[in-house]
Amino acid sequence: MTNYAQRAENVLDKINQLAAISDDPTCVTRTFGTKAFLEGSRLIQQWMQNAGLQTRVDAIGNVRGRLVSPIAGAKTFVLASHMDTVVNAGKFDGPMGVIMGLDLLEKLSQSDRSLPFNLELIAFSDEEGVRFHTTYLGSKVVAGSFDRSLLVKQDESGTTLSEVIQTIGGDVDQFSADAIAPDDWLGYFEIHIEQGPVLYERNVPVAIVTAIAGQKRIEIEFTGVAGHAGTVPMNMRQDALCAAAEFILEVEKFGFANRYNLVATVGKLNVVNAASNVIPGKVSCSLDVRSNNVTALEAACLKLQKLCANLCAERTIHFRWNLIQETAPVACDAKLNELLSQSINESGYERIDLVSGAGHDGVPISTVSPIAMLFVRCFNGISHNPLEDVELTDMAAAILVADKFINHLIDGFLSFRP
Amino acid sequence: MTNYAQRAENVLDKINQLAAISDDPTCVTRTFGTKAFLEGSRLIQQWMQNAGLQTRVDAIGNVRGRLVSPIAGAKTFVLASHMDTVVNAGKFDGPMGVIMGLDLLEKLSQSDRSLPFNLELIAFSDEEGVRFHTTYLGSKVVAGSFDRSLLVKQDESGTTLSEVIQTIGGDVDQFSADAIAPDDWLGYFEIHIEQGPVLYERNVPVAIVTAIAGQKRIEIEFTGVAGHAGTVPMNMRQDALCAAAEFILEVEKFGFANRYNLVATVGKLNVVNAASNVIPGKVSCSLDVRSNNVTALEAACLKLQKLCANLCAERTIHFRWNLIQETAPVACDAKLNELLSQSINESGYERIDLVSGAGHDGVPISTVSPIAMLFVRCFNGISHNPLEDVELTDMAAAILVADKFINHLIDGFLSFRP
Repeated sequence: MTNYAQRAENVLDKINQLAAISDDPTCVTRTFGTKAFLEGSRLIQQWMQNAGLQTRVDAIGNVRGRLVSPIAGAKTFVLASHMDTVVNAGKFDGPMGVIMGLDLLEKLSQSDRSLPFNLELIAFSDEEGVRFHTTYLGSKVVAGSFDRSLLVKQDESGTTLSEVIQTIGGDVDQFSADAIAPDDWLGYFEIHIEQGPVLYERNVPVAIVTAIAGQKRIEIEFTGVAGHAGTVPMNMRQDALCAAAEFILEVEKFGFANRYNLVATVGKLNVVNAASNVIPGKVSCSLDVRSNNVTALEAACLKLQKLCANLCAERTIHFRWNLIQETAPVACDAKLNELLSQSINESGYERIDLVSGAGHDGVPISTVSPIAMLFVRCFNGISHNPLEDVELTDMAAAILVADKFINHLIDGFLSFRP
Repeated sequence: MTNYAQRAENVLDKINQLAAISDDPTCVTRTFGTKAFLEGSRLIQQWMQNAGLQTRVDAIGNVRGRLVSPIAGAKTFVLASHMDTVVNAGKFDGPMGVIMGLDLLEKLSQSDRSLPFNLELIAFSDEEGVRFHTTYLGSKVVAGSFDRSLLVKQDESGTTLSEVIQTIGGDVDQFSADAIAPDDWLGYFEIHIEQGPVLYERNVPVAIVTAIAGQKRIEIEFTGVAGHAGTVPMNMRQDALCAAAEFILEVEKFGFANRYNLVATVGKLNVVNAASNVIPGKVSCSLDVRSNNVTALEAACLKLQKLCANLCAERTIHFRWNLIQETAPVACDAKLNELLSQSINESGYERIDLVSGAGHDGVPISTVSPIAMLFVRCFNGISHNPLEDVELTDMAAAILVADKFINHLIDGFLSFRP
């Protein structure tokens, strides 16, 4: 294990170097196309070069490094994660996966192994989507599914996405050339912090991701009758906040009853023209439902809408139910997960299967390639927060498992071939 | 009834004249000490003069008009309401009571009745308290209980209350001279719209106010643990909004079970750092509880605090319970209410007793004088809103009842003397 402990320390050192590059000196913030973003991407490219990879920055700013197979027409297996961050971020979400991929490829580069497929490490330029309120810009270009209508989107200062891409040396006309063609994909593997508390609570360092949950985001508006809190008797009220409160508890109860299938959350709630002495007449709230099972997701939203309708009818409250956003669940590849499972067993860890409730670059990639993800335990499940933390021993465990995984992939290539 | 219908039309005409005087040409807004306020107060003083009253504007801007008794050392009975309004107000809340009082005193002034006590009509300068976030400025001066520490309070533009009083020709050093001494009070009577839906629902024009409710205003903060809405399983959450929702429904249930004793309302709710994909970690909300029964009010708040503690303990949520404001209930005078009841019976209406959940100038006056109030039905219980409306027939009913009340008071003075 000493070897992997040392590798984990090297990874953490690079994570810290990258975290020191920030648009805000008081915290870690590196959003797409900023000065810090460019500095970070240059550092990553330099590391890739030092590791013996063939490197380049592609047309959307992804940093890419390859170990090329001597076999003509060899397919490509991608190791990746993202290098951008949210505002006031933790330092592990994204960079840890990139730098662990770097460590793995560096070791392969130093070995004498002849590769039966190309290995490509990608540091995606925009996964968090903070600057333009959109996600997966980098991975969508690699998957060949970039939506060009996004190019006119503006950031807070009015700069368009198109202009930012030009500023960082990208080229919107070269996107298709930078996609990996569907026939060339062998697979995709990403290491990422869990961003949830399950591994922390169960005291296990890593987990296999079986699927990335689908999501529906709904906005609900409850309309009752505003009134004076002192003068309208309790039995003559149409209180929109009470209706919303009942709905929130129904969501919680339903989510709990179906907790092995989904999560359901009311995260935002706004009382319109709120005052302590006014009975709320109008309340809006959000609903976020996620599941790896598309049938369960659909059924949950129908059921919650029906529960909402029933309680509103009881209370003579009017409600509107607006679907804002939906994404389908994405399954991780069973064969790749078998290989991951074998690697976890050989490493002496318990196999834990998790559904990722958060989205990842694997979502767009899944349309062109089998995907797999390894989750790493993080402190108390905290992420998108300076308190985000990963133990060195857990990083060592992840490198050990991933190292076995990649080597099994190489060893078993002929039998595996998905 | 023709006579009273005509008087109601005259009252409505003056209500409309006053409503046309506003700081905002698009709606009715006349807050303390503004240009429109001064113009309105001059018009009211002019009306009082025309009605044959001895008029003056006192040191806090109250407009006062007297019919003086020929008896030396006669006590004073006050008819009053307020002339200030909220922002974007209705036109009846306040002015209707002032102008009905004017109508009543004008008729007495025209009659040959010799008064056994002085009658004073007061248009209070500040009941709503919009400009300085304080209430009853005018009536507190008349009650002799003005708190001089308020004088340094500033409005939104930074002007102090003291400066505004100077601007409108008032004099903070003359407040005590403008108080009616406790020994000089005979009683206090105010006509006001109900501001609630009970009379509208029960189809009755007027009601006797038995008490003005006491109030407790509490702010509650729920602290759980924020988390990613996609990655934290339902059974590992400490969702502050779910705790608040459960509390809101407990408040509603408790209020309904005790609906003959009190009202309880959560009017404000704020999710700190709310986002649709974040489990709420911190939520604050208001609680407003009102009752005419001080024991019920105390018991209710203790009970609700205990319910809150229980549900938070179940959920491992921390809560803080902060009492922000409290006022004691004020009982209206039983003898004056008997006279009101007699007047209502003689007028052919059903006697309805209501507790006022809203505060009124009678609250400060009650410390020096017996008080009584007559509520008048308003459309759908709506007030503090341009939709505020009172039917002419209901105004006629109120004038009829109040006319009988004042005349009974004069007739029965010797036997009544509280």
